[in-house]
Amino acid sequence: MIGISQIGVYIPDRKVSNLDLLEKFDVNESFIKEKIGVLRRARKQPEERSSDLCVKAFDDLNKKTSIDVSEIDCCVVVTQNPDFNIPHTSAIVHGALGLPEECASFDISLGCSGYVYALSIVMAFMQANGMAKGLLFTADPYSDIIDEDDKNTALIFGDAATVTLLDSNAKLIPMGFDFGSKGAGYKGLINEGKLHMNGRAVFGFTATVVPKSITKLLTKLDLEKDSVNRWYLHQGSKYIIDTITQRLELDKQKVVFDMYDYGNTVSSSIPLLLCHDIDSMQVGQKIGLSGFGVGLSWSSAIFQRIN
Amino acid sequence: MIGISQIGVYIPDRKVSNLDLLEKFDVNESFIKEKIGVLRRARKQPEERSSDLCVKAFDDLNKKTSIDVSEIDCCVVVTQNPDFNIPHTSAIVHGALGLPEECASFDISLGCSGYVYALSIVMAFMQANGMAKGLLFTADPYSDIIDEDDKNTALIFGDAATVTLLDSNAKLIPMGFDFGSKGAGYKGLINEGKLHMNGRAVFGFTATVVPKSITKLLTKLDLEKDSVNRWYLHQGSKYIIDTITQRLELDKQKVVFDMYDYGNTVSSSIPLLLCHDIDSMQVGQKIGLSGFGVGLSWSSAIFQRIN
Repeated sequence: MIGISQIGVYIPDRKVSNLDLLEKFDVNESFIKEKIGVLRRARKQPEERSSDLCVKAFDDLNKKTSIDVSEIDCCVVVTQNPDFNIPHTSAIVHGALGLPEECASFDISLGCSGYVYALSIVMAFMQANGMAKGLLFTADPYSDIIDEDDKNTALIFGDAATVTLLDSNAKLIPMGFDFGSKGAGYKGLINEGKLHMNGRAVFGFTATVVPKSITKLLTKLDLEKDSVNRWYLHQGSKYIIDTITQRLELDKQKVVFDMYDYGNTVSSSIPLLLCHDIDSMQVGQKIGLSGFGVGLSWSSAIFQRIN
Repeated sequence: MIGISQIGVYIPDRKVSNLDLLEKFDVNESFIKEKIGVLRRARKQPEERSSDLCVKAFDDLNKKTSIDVSEIDCCVVVTQNPDFNIPHTSAIVHGALGLPEECASFDISLGCSGYVYALSIVMAFMQANGMAKGLLFTADPYSDIIDEDDKNTALIFGDAATVTLLDSNAKLIPMGFDFGSKGAGYKGLINEGKLHMNGRAVFGFTATVVPKSITKLLTKLDLEKDSVNRWYLHQGSKYIIDTITQRLELDKQKVVFDMYDYGNTVSSSIPLLLCHDIDSMQVGQKIGLSGFGVGLSWSSAIFQRIN
């Protein structure tokens, strides 16, 4: 069965400090640390494009597990900041990595729910077509579309990219997924030249749908929430992670939080967390994932370590 | 098994005549009719967005087969001309149609190969997640990105949208797919403000990879090409359809050609052809599909009428 085998990541070294912006935005250090949860935001070079970030994430993957590019059957990029609208960014990555002509390539346009959605989409596509090895990239650098004077967004988003190797030699396989959409609220996060976010609307949506989605999924799988060993929630902000943790009455020790040093990296946030733990998880352990945001859209999943 | 159940389409009434442009581009009528194969190009209103075209295609589907929107599990839009880059256009369509919160929504970014790719992606995703009814939209209006003075593109592309109802009550089910990418050639079709097409490069690529892809697929499925009753190739131009027909030595009568009155509609071209025939095909008949273009990218499939 196809599942997650390894994860490569790229976080730019260049960082912008939020603590230098306290006066500009009339906020204090505790707000930055306890509510936003971002001390520094990772920033790509202005000329770097999403495909460049993908290639750097691939370099990291290749260090962890040597990849024979001629064996790759499938190359997918999740992004809403493509290099161009035409062609898809996965084509550019396909060319840059020298992937074979037989390799299927396409982009998925989703935001913060994108990684969890794409895991299901790409694994199902590979399985249906008898594909053995796939690369699932996430790269959604918001630094080019952020208004640096907009308090709602300027303190939150960071740039990064990840690549997940999906193959039949997987460490993590899915037990089940839950998906949802609230398209009527699509203006909550919108790019009309610059990103605009209605923070209150997005927060309210998240605090309602994510606990519901996770509860629904656990019920469907006939699992107690305590049987899940670790939770990897999209790192929207510290406040949203704390709120979901509280509403679901999750054990705080089991809920990963790590965005202080790079920010909310959209669809890259969950694989950025997972990459630290994938090798050390014990066989049989279960993990919960949930992504939510742009769309409005959400997706939750339970995976199990099998190998 | 999930397959194609019905197809709704939307072609704008507004048309631009290529025969009025003979002098401007220094071409004759025979070039327009025999090489390009487009007499009139369909043109959306300037303020209409991709999501608006999708909703109009849905209205057509709803006339053909009444849709209970509360039953839709999945809403996917194939486009490289989204309403916005953030959010995905499927979210806007989800909201406009009043689809349920449980409905998964995402966009696929692919060009002329998009419909065939997406059939596999969406059917596999639905099947893996136990979904019963899905809507697969194509909407890639190029009129907003065409340079009207560029002979390479100005005579070719038309606007349209389609929606394919995918469900377990299907008329057409897949026998197999073939996919491919040539990312190194991604500059052949690129939007850097306006669309630029290297017609010669794209033609050369197509004339090589499409016959190869179809032959490979037929071999994989152990089918003779004569056992396929009808071919639905992406309507890139009359010349490319004629070239593929010739290279594969297909029976001309079996190769559908119909773009004179609206143009090359990108990912909508194949479903625009299929919608005319889906109800009249006989049980057991096989059809061949192949999309190719932006990326560079291609995808072929054989479907069979079962119901």
